[in-house]
Amino acid sequence: MPKAQITIKDIARELQVSVSTVSRALNDSPDLSAATKKKVQDYAKLHHYNPNFLALSIKKRESTIIGVIVPEVTHHFFASVVEGILEVADREGFSVLLFRSHEQYDKEVRSVQRLLSSRVCGVLTSVAKETTRYDHFQELVDNDIPVIFFDRICVDIPTNRVVIDDYAGALTATEYLINTGCRKIAFFCSPMHLEISKNRRGGYMDALRKHGLPVDHDLIKICDNYDDAIPVATEMLQSENKPDAFFAVNDETALGILHATKQLHFKIPDEVSICGFTDGFAAIASDPQLTTVGQNGFDVGVSAMELLLERIRYKGADAMLKNRIIRTKLIVRETTR
Amino acid sequence: MPKAQITIKDIARELQVSVSTVSRALNDSPDLSAATKKKVQDYAKLHHYNPNFLALSIKKRESTIIGVIVPEVTHHFFASVVEGILEVADREGFSVLLFRSHEQYDKEVRSVQRLLSSRVCGVLTSVAKETTRYDHFQELVDNDIPVIFFDRICVDIPTNRVVIDDYAGALTATEYLINTGCRKIAFFCSPMHLEISKNRRGGYMDALRKHGLPVDHDLIKICDNYDDAIPVATEMLQSENKPDAFFAVNDETALGILHATKQLHFKIPDEVSICGFTDGFAAIASDPQLTTVGQNGFDVGVSAMELLLERIRYKGADAMLKNRIIRTKLIVRETTR
Repeated sequence: MPKAQITIKDIARELQVSVSTVSRALNDSPDLSAATKKKVQDYAKLHHYNPNFLALSIKKRESTIIGVIVPEVTHHFFASVVEGILEVADREGFSVLLFRSHEQYDKEVRSVQRLLSSRVCGVLTSVAKETTRYDHFQELVDNDIPVIFFDRICVDIPTNRVVIDDYAGALTATEYLINTGCRKIAFFCSPMHLEISKNRRGGYMDALRKHGLPVDHDLIKICDNYDDAIPVATEMLQSENKPDAFFAVNDETALGILHATKQLHFKIPDEVSICGFTDGFAAIASDPQLTTVGQNGFDVGVSAMELLLERIRYKGADAMLKNRIIRTKLIVRETTR
Repeated sequence: MPKAQITIKDIARELQVSVSTVSRALNDSPDLSAATKKKVQDYAKLHHYNPNFLALSIKKRESTIIGVIVPEVTHHFFASVVEGILEVADREGFSVLLFRSHEQYDKEVRSVQRLLSSRVCGVLTSVAKETTRYDHFQELVDNDIPVIFFDRICVDIPTNRVVIDDYAGALTATEYLINTGCRKIAFFCSPMHLEISKNRRGGYMDALRKHGLPVDHDLIKICDNYDDAIPVATEMLQSENKPDAFFAVNDETALGILHATKQLHFKIPDEVSICGFTDGFAAIASDPQLTTVGQNGFDVGVSAMELLLERIRYKGADAMLKNRIIRTKLIVRETTR
């Protein structure tokens, strides 16, 4: 074998694991076993795998600063994504300029303007809830700055994306509720102009249809935070049309529903089942512990950075539009039967 | 009155509130009432207060990029600090390069080297748990890059600092436990080379001494995360020397203790009281809801940025060493009597 630089693909072939597993092992992803990580890392070390090999080939004068705009930093999912991004950035010699839209259109536009004047080599972002116009992102693209959307994407701009399999996650969770005997499943979601809401609602509805259950629009609420979920769930649980299960777009909302359900002394999960979406620390801290769809934010961040680095390094490949889909995982705990 | 630029001090005097209140109102701090914020913001608007006035006076060629290194992004406290920093940065026209040490000395050193070569105009940081040598931070100072430590400070380097009143927070929490009848109070903390650990232990011990209770070193454990807290608390609760209360350095640890206590069917808070430190969302999601010391990370971030901007703008004032102390607040919920 010639003494060429060993690649991630070589390691994957040699150890008979997937390229993604090698990448995640080298990124120290929390979702792999310690044994697998050690095996890959030891092999990489032994064969002098140099993770900076490609980064070093970038022309010296080019920027190595990436811009990132997230809606909030304190939300577990976005914090996990940022950690994934920082992990790859550290390994590959890039730095990250971080902005927070605070879910506001104005702040998002201002962040993009700041990034335009900062000579960043690419932008990773998840759209603010308030945002319904996308000219500012188009301006980045028009200025040859590659943009990768993750989670809350913008369908109008043709660029690479990393999405959670929201549809499959919602479908699996709703089917699980149906298979454990729930028949009137309420759905609490974010505003419908967000692509993630449409996809999760699609999965929820298709699961109902697949099992011959009616779609009751009174059971679908635009409600996506802890404080609002308490009164909305309370009213539903006291109505004639009482649900026997709730599926919520995030853990905060699910935990607000849990709080309301306990206040009204319903038995969980026997009388009321609850399922969230995120899998943050609060899902474990709650009692009963929350069943939820794990979102794997760290891997979303790693994937988004990898897509961006590909775009930056192999400019010829720009035309190829890539969608990476990060799989969710239903984590059954104590709030479902 | 001459038509000079109105300052934060003018607003404070006119409305008879503190300068800090005005600053926090203009920063939209979550800890002020909506009424106070509106009053200050309306006055500022009416009198054409221009928050960018000073930022604009900075020489155009100087960097407006701040470096920030935090141990983790997914920890609620550090995420809140980052949000406070980003809020002021957005208002004052600065951008933030974010790094994460992941509690590792090597990564922290690498982040500092990246910042040194990025021409940042200042650095805000909280030291990694692993770090016991500080040469890398000294190098920043030697290169005339102002450094502000927050929370986990480095006492060896003479620079401005923003600290939580860890001593007072721990003293107040421990006294509350004593005043509600607890006599054998265990203390779970981080490694002792961290200044915050020393200060919190100091507050804990002084509270015991003040009330004539013995300091039992068997009740003090180096243990600061959810997973480790479960076996350690279980063993203590099954021993002859069973504590009747636990005080932990963060909410994760307190919630691990809560889990263990419930598994053993002790009545909370009657047989065992528990108090945390942070006040993240998990404290509200838990059942019973967690009594904890609120850390106010957002205000720590705002203060750290303000101190740094002062250093950058008024270079003559460099010699003046400032310590800003952010007050904690005991939030009594259901895990204490």
